[in-house]
Amino acid sequence: MSNEFQFIEWIRHRSECKGRVVIGPGDDCAVLYPGSLPQLITSDMLMDGVDFHLNEIGPHRVGRKAMAVNLSDLAAMAGIPLFAVVSVALPRGVEHLAELIYLGLREVADRFGVSIVGGDTNTWYGPLVISVTLIGESEKPILRSGAMPGDKIFVTGQLGGSILGHHLDFTPRIHEARALRSVVDLHSMIDISDGLSQDLHHIITESSCGAVVFAEKIPVSLAAQQLSKSSGKPAIEHALTDGEDFELIFTIAQTDVEKLLKSSPVPVWKIGECIDSGYFLEYETIRQPLTPKGWVHSF
Amino acid sequence: MSNEFQFIEWIRHRSECKGRVVIGPGDDCAVLYPGSLPQLITSDMLMDGVDFHLNEIGPHRVGRKAMAVNLSDLAAMAGIPLFAVVSVALPRGVEHLAELIYLGLREVADRFGVSIVGGDTNTWYGPLVISVTLIGESEKPILRSGAMPGDKIFVTGQLGGSILGHHLDFTPRIHEARALRSVVDLHSMIDISDGLSQDLHHIITESSCGAVVFAEKIPVSLAAQQLSKSSGKPAIEHALTDGEDFELIFTIAQTDVEKLLKSSPVPVWKIGECIDSGYFLEYETIRQPLTPKGWVHSF
Repeated sequence: MSNEFQFIEWIRHRSECKGRVVIGPGDDCAVLYPGSLPQLITSDMLMDGVDFHLNEIGPHRVGRKAMAVNLSDLAAMAGIPLFAVVSVALPRGVEHLAELIYLGLREVADRFGVSIVGGDTNTWYGPLVISVTLIGESEKPILRSGAMPGDKIFVTGQLGGSILGHHLDFTPRIHEARALRSVVDLHSMIDISDGLSQDLHHIITESSCGAVVFAEKIPVSLAAQQLSKSSGKPAIEHALTDGEDFELIFTIAQTDVEKLLKSSPVPVWKIGECIDSGYFLEYETIRQPLTPKGWVHSF
Repeated sequence: MSNEFQFIEWIRHRSECKGRVVIGPGDDCAVLYPGSLPQLITSDMLMDGVDFHLNEIGPHRVGRKAMAVNLSDLAAMAGIPLFAVVSVALPRGVEHLAELIYLGLREVADRFGVSIVGGDTNTWYGPLVISVTLIGESEKPILRSGAMPGDKIFVTGQLGGSILGHHLDFTPRIHEARALRSVVDLHSMIDISDGLSQDLHHIITESSCGAVVFAEKIPVSLAAQQLSKSSGKPAIEHALTDGEDFELIFTIAQTDVEKLLKSSPVPVWKIGECIDSGYFLEYETIRQPLTPKGWVHSF
C-alpha cells in the first residue's frame, strides 16, 4: 500500500469498525481481527509505464514484482503471508501474457507460502495493470508508530539505485522481519518503498518523535554508486532518496542494541537514532536538516 | 470475480491450501477459514471504456459500481460483507476525481456496513482503473455446485437491457440472499454478471446436472423491451444473454417451493428446473437447446 496520497487520507478519517478493525494510521497493512490472530491486509496496483516497462522486462518479472511488493508491505509489519487475490487488465491481443505473469506471481508466492485463491482477469485496449491483495497474519503486528526518542535506527540492506534492477528482483524481507522480532523487541518498522528519507519520516511522524541519520553509516549500494556516475548526484543522495529498495527500516531500544549486534540472524546496519523532535542528517558531527523527499521514477 | 478466463483456470488447478482455504471451483468468492466463521474474499477490477465510460457517468457512479459489483459476488454466496481495500490508477491531471470516486464507494459501502480499510492510489497517463477486494463472512457459503436434478430455478429480479442504466445503479442482493436463506435451504446460487444463460450454465456445470428454462416465465425487464426496439433482437434474448443484471439465480428443492412462494421475503420468479443433463429453453412445450452466450459490451 505504497504511493497512497488522497484516498488513504480519507480512509484515516473513518473510524467505524464493527469492533473488529484497527486502521493503523498510515501503516503498511490494515489490521483485522476475524479469529484468534490479527489479520493483515495490503494491496498494491502496478501499471505498465509507471512501475515497470513490460516491453523491457517481460511478463514473468511483472508477476514477480507484483507479488513481491505486497510481501514487502507485509514484512514491514512482521506478518506471515497466507493468501492473495490477483486482478489484471491485459492489453488486448497479448492475452497469452497472462500465463507468464501468473508463473511469475507463483514463483514468488511459492517461495513465501502464499496461496493464490482468486482473481479477476480482464482485457482492454489500455496498458497492463495488475493489482494484488495479500492477506496474512501476525501475533503482534509491528506498527510505524512505536518509535521512541533514544531508539536506534537500523536498515536491513544496502540502499539506492534500485532502478538499475533491484526494484524488480528484490527479496521481500518476510523472513528477516520474523527473524529479527525473534531476538529483539521491534518498536517500529516500515519497508522502503518511497526512499529512506521519506519512509523514515513516516515512522517519526506516526511516532511523534524526531530522528538523526548518520551519513557515514548509511550502507550505500553499488548500484547507487554506479547511478551516481550518470546522474551527477552523490551516491549518498541516491541511498537517501531513491525508492523501491524494499529493505526494512526498524527501531529498537538502546538496551537491545548489543543483543542485536551480537546475535542478529540477518545483516543489519545501524544508521541513526530517534530524538525528541526534528529531522537531521549528521555528517562529520555537523547536523543539517533532512528533507523527506518523495520518489519519482525517472522514466 | 467475474470475467475470469485464463487466470482462474490455473488457480483452480492449484490445491495447496495450508488446510485453511477451500477454492470453490469457479465460485464467486474464495472461502478461507481464519477463525470461527468461513471468510469470503472476492475481487473485481473495472476499467474505463470497458465497464464504464468515465466521461459519461462521472466518478461518483464509478465508485458506486466498483463497490457494488463486489457486493454482488458476495451476495451470490449469501455472505455478510465486512471490509474492503481499494486500488486505483487515476489519469494524471484529474487526480481530484479520487475524492468523488471515494464518495461513491463510501455511499454503497455505508449502505451495506462495509469498512474501507486500506488501498493504493496511483496516477498514470492511462485511463481510470479501479480494483476493489471485498472480505466478508458466512456461516455456510452457498456454492454454485449444490444444484440437484429436480431443483427449481429462481431469479430475484427482472432481466435484460442493463446497459441502459441498471448496470450502474443496481442494488447488490446482499439482503435478499440473507433473507432467502433464512426461509429455505438454498442448494446453489450465483449472481448474473455474464447473463442468465451463461451464469445458469455455470451452476449446472459445477453441479453436474442439466436445466430447462421456461421462456414465458423469465421476467423480462422494461429495459430489455426498450433495447429490443433499437437492437432488433427479441426482448427475451436480451433477458437471456445481456450481462450485468446483478440479480441472483438460485435453486431449491421442489419440496421447498410452496414454502418459498408463500413466505418469500423478497420478489422471486420461478423460471425453470434442474434436470439430469442437457441445457434447454422451453417455449410452448417445445424444447430447444440453450446456448450459454457470453456477454460482450456493445460499447
